[in-house]
Amino acid sequence: MNFSTILKPLIIILFFVAVCMAFPLLVALYYDEPAAVKSFFSVMISVATVSALIFYFLRNLPIHRIAIRESFVLVALCWFSISFISALPFYISGAIPNFSEAFFETVSGFSTTGATILTDIEALPKSMLFWRSLTHWLGGMGIIVLAVAVLPLLGVGGLQLLKAEAPGPTVDKVSPRISETAKILWGIYIGMTVVEAMLLNFAGMSYFDAFVHAFSTVSTGGFSSKGDSIAAFKSPLIEWIVIIFMILSGASFTLHYKVITGRARQIFKSTELKVYLVIILIVSSLVSLNLYSKNIYSFSNSVRYAFFQVSSILTTTGFATADYEMWPNFAQFLLFMLMFLGGCSGSTSGGIKIIRIITLMKLAINELKYLVHPKAIMTIFIDGNVIKKDMIYSISAFVFLYMCMVLFTTFVCAVSGEDLLTSFTTAMTTVGNVGPGFGKIGPTENFHFFAGWVKWFLSASMIIGRLEVFTVMVIFTRAFWKK
Amino acid sequence: MNFSTILKPLIIILFFVAVCMAFPLLVALYYDEPAAVKSFFSVMISVATVSALIFYFLRNLPIHRIAIRESFVLVALCWFSISFISALPFYISGAIPNFSEAFFETVSGFSTTGATILTDIEALPKSMLFWRSLTHWLGGMGIIVLAVAVLPLLGVGGLQLLKAEAPGPTVDKVSPRISETAKILWGIYIGMTVVEAMLLNFAGMSYFDAFVHAFSTVSTGGFSSKGDSIAAFKSPLIEWIVIIFMILSGASFTLHYKVITGRARQIFKSTELKVYLVIILIVSSLVSLNLYSKNIYSFSNSVRYAFFQVSSILTTTGFATADYEMWPNFAQFLLFMLMFLGGCSGSTSGGIKIIRIITLMKLAINELKYLVHPKAIMTIFIDGNVIKKDMIYSISAFVFLYMCMVLFTTFVCAVSGEDLLTSFTTAMTTVGNVGPGFGKIGPTENFHFFAGWVKWFLSASMIIGRLEVFTVMVIFTRAFWKK
Repeated sequence: MNFSTILKPLIIILFFVAVCMAFPLLVALYYDEPAAVKSFFSVMISVATVSALIFYFLRNLPIHRIAIRESFVLVALCWFSISFISALPFYISGAIPNFSEAFFETVSGFSTTGATILTDIEALPKSMLFWRSLTHWLGGMGIIVLAVAVLPLLGVGGLQLLKAEAPGPTVDKVSPRISETAKILWGIYIGMTVVEAMLLNFAGMSYFDAFVHAFSTVSTGGFSSKGDSIAAFKSPLIEWIVIIFMILSGASFTLHYKVITGRARQIFKSTELKVYLVIILIVSSLVSLNLYSKNIYSFSNSVRYAFFQVSSILTTTGFATADYEMWPNFAQFLLFMLMFLGGCSGSTSGGIKIIRIITLMKLAINELKYLVHPKAIMTIFIDGNVIKKDMIYSISAFVFLYMCMVLFTTFVCAVSGEDLLTSFTTAMTTVGNVGPGFGKIGPTENFHFFAGWVKWFLSASMIIGRLEVFTVMVIFTRAFWKK
Repeated sequence: MNFSTILKPLIIILFFVAVCMAFPLLVALYYDEPAAVKSFFSVMISVATVSALIFYFLRNLPIHRIAIRESFVLVALCWFSISFISALPFYISGAIPNFSEAFFETVSGFSTTGATILTDIEALPKSMLFWRSLTHWLGGMGIIVLAVAVLPLLGVGGLQLLKAEAPGPTVDKVSPRISETAKILWGIYIGMTVVEAMLLNFAGMSYFDAFVHAFSTVSTGGFSSKGDSIAAFKSPLIEWIVIIFMILSGASFTLHYKVITGRARQIFKSTELKVYLVIILIVSSLVSLNLYSKNIYSFSNSVRYAFFQVSSILTTTGFATADYEMWPNFAQFLLFMLMFLGGCSGSTSGGIKIIRIITLMKLAINELKYLVHPKAIMTIFIDGNVIKKDMIYSISAFVFLYMCMVLFTTFVCAVSGEDLLTSFTTAMTTVGNVGPGFGKIGPTENFHFFAGWVKWFLSASMIIGRLEVFTVMVIFTRAFWKK
C-alpha cells in the first residue's frame, strides 16, 4: 500500500469539492442568507487553502500509477472525507445543529439515497437545499469519474478507479481512453440535467426548484426542496417529466451515448434495458389497476401515481407523490419487491441491478436443465455474449454479500430497538440507496428518530451500498493488507 | 418419460401409506373414537384394495431402471398423492370438514412444516392428532427413502430417488449399497424416536403425548397434541429433552451413524456441524441476555425459552414454549434471521441449510481476495475437500431459486390482501418448512384465516420447499419434456 500515491489525488478531490461550494454560496448571496454565506465561504476557503498548501508541499512527490489496492482505499477514503467536509456548512450555519445528522444527510446526498433526517425541509435556507441536491448530483455519476474526466493526473490508473466507483458489474468503455469515457458520461449527465431543469421550469417550477429537482432526478437521489416532495407542485405535467427522467437515469448511460451518436437501433439489443422497461410497464400497470379497482384515486391519477412510485423506487430515486403506505397490501408488496432490484448497470441507480438478476435467473435455468442432462456443458449468453464463469462467481458473491450487508444493517436497527419491518426496510433502503421505506420510515416520515450511533452506522451502509459492497469490504480482508 | 416405470413404485408407496393408517386406527380403537375408526378403516381398505388391484393388473409390466427424469416426476407425484389420500381421514370423519384445510394440514405434516389451520387442537380426536404427527414422521426422513429401504423393487435407481427427496446438496452414502444406506438412516431415525418418547414419558408425558411429540421432534415438524404446544406441559425437564432432540434432528444423520459406529471423533471435522452448534450457542445466549436484561423472565426461564425457541426455529421444527411476538425487537429479529438458515444437510430440517451458506460465504471471501489478486486461482475447501465449480453454481442457483420461491409466495399472500410482514414470514415459514412466523401467523395463531385458494398455493409451497425447489421446478422446464 503506497499512501503517498493516494494522498495527492485525495487532496485534489477535496479541493475540487471545496470549489463546488461556490454554487451554493452564489445561491446564498442571491437569496441573501447571511448565516449560509458565512458558513459556505469559511468552509470553502479553509478546505481550499489547506489542500492547496498540502499540495504545494507535496509538489515534488512523484505520482505513481494507482494500483488495484490503492484504488479501493482512495475511493473509500474519498467518499468518507468529501462527506465529512460537505457536512460542515450544514453544521456550522446551524441549519442542522447536530453533526451526526449533518453527516447522515450529506452521505445520503452523495450516495444518492435521499433519506433525510429533516423534520421541516422548508425551514432550511435555500442555499442549503441547493447544496443538498448538489451532493446528489456530484455523487450520482461519481465524483471520481468527474475527477478522472477533468484531471489528467488521474488518467493513469483511472479505469481501476472507475471500476471501484461505478455501479454495475462492468465498466462499459465508450471510448478507448478512460478520461474520454469519463468526459462523455459526464457530458451526457450534464446535458440531461439542463434539459430536465428547462422542462421543469417550463412546466411551472421556479429556476431554483427546477435545478434542485433536476439534480435529484438524474442522480436518482430523491432530495426535494419541499416537505411533500414532488406532490407539493400539484402538477401532473411536472410529475410526468420527472417520471420520464427517472426512467432515463435508471438506464445505462452508455446506451444514451449510443442514441446520441446515432446508433439508436443498438439499444434494442440490450436485454437489461428490455427487462427494465418491461418491469416498469407491468408493475406500474398492476399498481394502477390495484389503486383504481379499490377506488382510491381516479383512473388518470391511479396511472400517474403508479408510474411515478414504481419508477421512483425501481430507479432508487425515492421521490413521492403519494403516501404509498396507505395503498393496498398488494401495491405495497410490489414496491417492496422493486427495492431488491434497482435499475440498470451503468446508470446512477442503486440496488442489486437488473443485469445481475438476469444472470442469476439464467444460471438457475441452466442448473434445472443440467439436472436433466448432467453431462451437457451449459453456457450463459446475454446480448449474444458468453458470460464467463468468473463473472458468474463474482455476481453470486456480490448478491450474497449485498444480502449479508442488508441483514447486518437490519440487525443493527433491531439492536437499537426498532421493529422488524422498519429495521428490514431501513436496511433495504440505505444499502440500496433508495430513500424511503415502510413502517416508521415511510414516504411521509424521516430518519430523525434513529439514535445518533445508528445514524453513523446507516451512513456507512449508504456508502458501502453506493460503492457496491466489494470496494469497501475488500479493505477489511486480510489478503488486502498482506504483502 | 416412461410413465409405466413410475406407476408401479407410485402404487406401492400409496399402498404403503394406507398400511400406515393401521396405527391411527389402533389408536382410534383404543380411545374408542367411532367416527375416526370408520374413516381410517374405510380409507385404508379402499386405497389398499384399489392399489393392490392395479398392481395385480400391472404384474406383467416390466420394471425399468428409474432414470433421472422419472425420479423427479415420481417423487413430486408421490408427495402430492400421499398428501391427498392422507387428508381423506380428516375430511371424511369431519375432524376437518373443509377439504382445502385437510389437505393443507396433511401437506404441512408430510413436509414437516407444522403450520396448522386448527383453531382448537384439543377438540380433535386423539387418533387424528396421532395421524397428524405420524405424517410428520413419515415425511421427515422421507417416505421414499423408507420405500427404498424396505422395497427391493426400488433399489434400482434408488440413488436418483434419494437425491430428489433428500434435504441438502448431496446424499452422503453411508453404505455403498443405496438400500443399505436408506435402512441405516431409517434405523437411526426410529431409534431416536423411541429414545425420545421414552424420555418424555419418563418426564411425565402420557405414552400418547410422548409418541406424538417424539414424531414431531425428530422429523423437525412441530405439530403438537396441545394448543399451547410444549408450553402446555409446564415442565422444564420436558422442554430440555425436546431442545436436545431438536438439535440432534437438525444435525446430519450421517454424523449420527458415525457416532453410533464408534467414529465419534470424525464429527469434529465437520465444519457444518461446528457452525450449526456455534450459531445455536451464540444466538441463544444473545436472546437469553435480551430477555433477562429486559426483566421479562427469570434467568433460568430466559435461558430455557431462548434455547428452545432458537433450536425450534433454526431446525425448522416450530414448537413454541412462549409467545415470541411479545419479545423485544432484537430477539424477534434474531429468530427471523434463523428462518433463512435452516439446519444441516442430511438432517430432517428445512430452510436453505447451513452448508450452502458456508459455501457462499467462502465464495464471497474468495471473490474479495480475487479483487486484490486478479490473476490468482482460488479454490474453495470445506472439511479439507475441494468444492467443485459445478457445486458452487448449483448452490448459487438453489439459493436464488429458493428466494424467488419465497418472494413469489409473498406475492401470492399479498394478492390475497395480507400485510407485508405476514406475507413475507408466511412465505419464509412455508417454503422453509418452519411452521409459525410473525404478524398474523405468530406462534399463538394459525393459518385458518387464509382464503381457500391461498391454502392450496401454500400447500404447493410447502412441498416445493421440502423437495428443495429443484425437484419440482425442473418438471416445469421445457428441457425436461424435450426428447
